[in-house]
Amino acid sequence: MRRVGILGGMGPQATLLLMQKLLDAVPAVDDADHIPLIVDQNPQVPSRMRHLIEGSGDDPGPVLARMAERLVVAGAEALAMPCNTAHHYAPAIRAAVKVPLLDMVDLSVRRAAELAGLDGRVGILASPAVRKIGLFDAPLARCGLQALYPDDEAKMLAAIRRIKAVGPDPETAVALRTASDALLQRGASVQMIACTEYSLLSDATAVGVTAFDTLDVLVAAITGFALEDSQRGATNVV
Amino acid sequence: MRRVGILGGMGPQATLLLMQKLLDAVPAVDDADHIPLIVDQNPQVPSRMRHLIEGSGDDPGPVLARMAERLVVAGAEALAMPCNTAHHYAPAIRAAVKVPLLDMVDLSVRRAAELAGLDGRVGILASPAVRKIGLFDAPLARCGLQALYPDDEAKMLAAIRRIKAVGPDPETAVALRTASDALLQRGASVQMIACTEYSLLSDATAVGVTAFDTLDVLVAAITGFALEDSQRGATNVV
Repeated sequence: MRRVGILGGMGPQATLLLMQKLLDAVPAVDDADHIPLIVDQNPQVPSRMRHLIEGSGDDPGPVLARMAERLVVAGAEALAMPCNTAHHYAPAIRAAVKVPLLDMVDLSVRRAAELAGLDGRVGILASPAVRKIGLFDAPLARCGLQALYPDDEAKMLAAIRRIKAVGPDPETAVALRTASDALLQRGASVQMIACTEYSLLSDATAVGVTAFDTLDVLVAAITGFALEDSQRGATNVV
Repeated sequence: MRRVGILGGMGPQATLLLMQKLLDAVPAVDDADHIPLIVDQNPQVPSRMRHLIEGSGDDPGPVLARMAERLVVAGAEALAMPCNTAHHYAPAIRAAVKVPLLDMVDLSVRRAAELAGLDGRVGILASPAVRKIGLFDAPLARCGLQALYPDDEAKMLAAIRRIKAVGPDPETAVALRTASDALLQRGASVQMIACTEYSLLSDATAVGVTAFDTLDVLVAAITGFALEDSQRGATNVV
């Protein structure tokens, strides 16, 4: 099996959720059946939201690049990052290391295209930072798809901050489901949960929505890379 | 905050439990309040039980030493290992690196001595490998304490293997509680859960037992080391 390095800590609970999903994804009869990981659980990565929304604070890019280098030194043969917003800095990571980055954004756009077909609107339940930087817009547009975001950015941001502080709870679940329902009314029958804080809420999308979680797409890519013997698997998912 | 390296994967679910306990132990209002970790989630460490009980299989010592070296290269300022049995190989780890190993066995013996006083019996709910190598016997004896182990080793081993395969369930909980009750009848009113698979079961000790989990002792040591500004904290807990 091949070892995957995790650029983690954004947030730390989401990193644990990824690790738990990876354990659950492998049918195992003993420890050795599970996927080897090297995890940089680094909650001190400068705030992505502060840097992207408020334009203040340190640049997370150089920190992520240094984390990537350390993970490769520690034996990682590919990298993965359970934080959608941080994929804005993917170019800095790619420039720092030679191993592939299993790109949650690219992989999720492909999944959305499979579900939505060639023309349509895809709802993005994500942080306002993701909307501001248009993280999904161009890759979705290349598939003939339009990204739709929740109108009430303040509520989406408040939900993230609340989950980071007190964990998922009914209040944040209601906020997310309301946003999901509004996106459905605007024509987005396919929606992606594109914030690993929201991933901590189960059943957070509206009835009638075909939803998937970008974190689950990343789990599938990591599992595929780790268990794939040939190098072909790697280039397929990068 | 200081970064702690985790020699993990023994088993992988226990490593996640440690990480979750570390998140729960820190009152946080944002990501940055949490402890930075670098985690080698390596489920392919050779089986400790096979090596110690059956005398077959590869020696885990050199693998753990190499993991320790890699964690230090990746930025770890101390190491911790959420697996009691693997502490048999602590000398190989200490010989490989200069940073301190937060020793779950030594720390747990001190905790047992605090609870049991200067004379008494301490029940050890652990794998048969821990009994065979006498992991806790000598350090407890130095505190005037006697280690007592469950009689039915086959059942204890079966419980560990079942938890590794299907997770904690009522059947393994009953097995552990029965063993705990028998230890109490033999005079061990203080007992330690000294197997990170058993840590996955809550409420697994008998009524009337003063019990603690060695994993919780390790959580306190990691938290203390990470949050302590001066180097004094490190030497205190090693």
